Amino acid sequence: MTTEFLVNQIKQKKSFLCVGLDTDLDKIPPHLLEEEDPIFAFNKAIIEATHDICVAYKPNIAFYEAYGLAGWQSLEKTMEYLNENHPEIFTIADAKRGDIGNTSTRYAKAFFETLNFDSITVAPYMGKDSVEPFLAFEDKHTILLALTSNAGAFDFQTKMLDNKELYKEVILTSSQYKNSQNLMYVIGATKASYLKEIREIIPNNFFLVPGVGAQGGSLEEVCRYGMNDEVGLLINSSRGILYASQNEEFAQSARKEALRLQKQMEKFLEK
Amino acid sequence: MTTEFLVNQIKQKKSFLCVGLDTDLDKIPPHLLEEEDPIFAFNKAIIEATHDICVAYKPNIAFYEAYGLAGWQSLEKTMEYLNENHPEIFTIADAKRGDIGNTSTRYAKAFFETLNFDSITVAPYMGKDSVEPFLAFEDKHTILLALTSNAGAFDFQTKMLDNKELYKEVILTSSQYKNSQNLMYVIGATKASYLKEIREIIPNNFFLVPGVGAQGGSLEEVCRYGMNDEVGLLINSSRGILYASQNEEFAQSARKEALRLQKQMEKFLEK
Repeated sequence: MTTEFLVNQIKQKKSFLCVGLDTDLDKIPPHLLEEEDPIFAFNKAIIEATHDICVAYKPNIAFYEAYGLAGWQSLEKTMEYLNENHPEIFTIADAKRGDIGNTSTRYAKAFFETLNFDSITVAPYMGKDSVEPFLAFEDKHTILLALTSNAGAFDFQTKMLDNKELYKEVILTSSQYKNSQNLMYVIGATKASYLKEIREIIPNNFFLVPGVGAQGGSLEEVCRYGMNDEVGLLINSSRGILYASQNEEFAQSARKEALRLQKQMEKFLEK
Repeated sequence: MTTEFLVNQIKQKKSFLCVGLDTDLDKIPPHLLEEEDPIFAFNKAIIEATHDICVAYKPNIAFYEAYGLAGWQSLEKTMEYLNENHPEIFTIADAKRGDIGNTSTRYAKAFFETLNFDSITVAPYMGKDSVEPFLAFEDKHTILLALTSNAGAFDFQTKMLDNKELYKEVILTSSQYKNSQNLMYVIGATKASYLKEIREIIPNNFFLVPGVGAQGGSLEEVCRYGMNDEVGLLINSSRGILYASQNEEFAQSARKEALRLQKQMEKFLEK
């Protein structure tokens, strides 16, 4: 999927919402456990309830791997379902992979070819030859971890490296990689001031923003400092949408929560 | 598996060889492609030919994921085979995972519980709360990327962060994490001088060393600078062993190459 197509989808749907599919058997409505594939049944219901008001889905790969073969199968079915029924949706493998060249190529094949995702999250620690094999897939996007939203982000990412924070070094260095126009960045919504500085460094790239909670406030700050002329933002919500309720009406509850976020986004898109 | 058990195995087998299972359908002997599960058939043959002269196997997870469900199945079968027939072997999931807390816990469950690996490689970029969920499994080992052997290692890892190289900061910071006694580190064999400095910082932790090729020279340097009183080294070889030949005698060829490395290791253990 091209960036232009994604931007058009955002404008059409008035939404830059990404729904994180962190599907957890301990949290889905108990009645679904009787289904043959509860994870897929849950994902399908969530997708059907939200696909017209979001532009992206982001399966969190760890949640599928934890169930072994069965989990991998649920992931394959979810991706087949999405690609067949909603090819306009931007799909993100939240996998945080990254390895030496020939191994990164294998991960790229796993997610871009075997599972047919539009994009994947990648960890930058191993540098250029660990990231470029993903970028070599020119019709796909590579979403590099820059500044994450967890407490551990302050262990290394915000420390000064050659007079600038490591996450800025990651952004600057990676913007020299081959096909870097297909890079997006994971930028946590922890501090609005960070977003402003990062947007100045990379005016054009998309940010995938996790950590925007139930608070409308932080969404406003992310939009104020992170949005560019082509929107440039995908804001993820996982548990807030998925587990809005645990009863038989879980899908409608999920839609209600997604709609609440979409309505806020609509306002910022009109500004 | 405890570190003590691993050290005993090393002393008993006179080997600190780790065989990397980077199993590639394009490289295995063509006659195996007729098997029901060629990847597992290949792994089993390699394991049977080498298990008495190595102490660890390291499936490179990307190679399995690239084949989707079938690959995951081959990985499960390989791990079941190893755990049933060779429980004395130290198993390493070369997965390079790392994510926020609850997601890292899922990855830990996937590899430590579902697949029953003894250890996993983990990327440090997201910091403490991305690594500690792995360390919480007290009978398992977490192998943190510090200094990798690829060219991209010089993008960030060797850059100065607060007056010391990022990889040293990773080592020092992580040694404060909870259960850090169960940490091992990936230390590439690119420069012997690095190994010496790192061994001074962490005298006790094991190093998992990739990038030792056919050259006996670099093995000697790794041993001279990296070995400690309890050996403290696992040296990995993947393609050099796996694809020593592509004919019907591939397993014997693999053994021959593994034996060549083991014989060299034996000398350094005697010193």
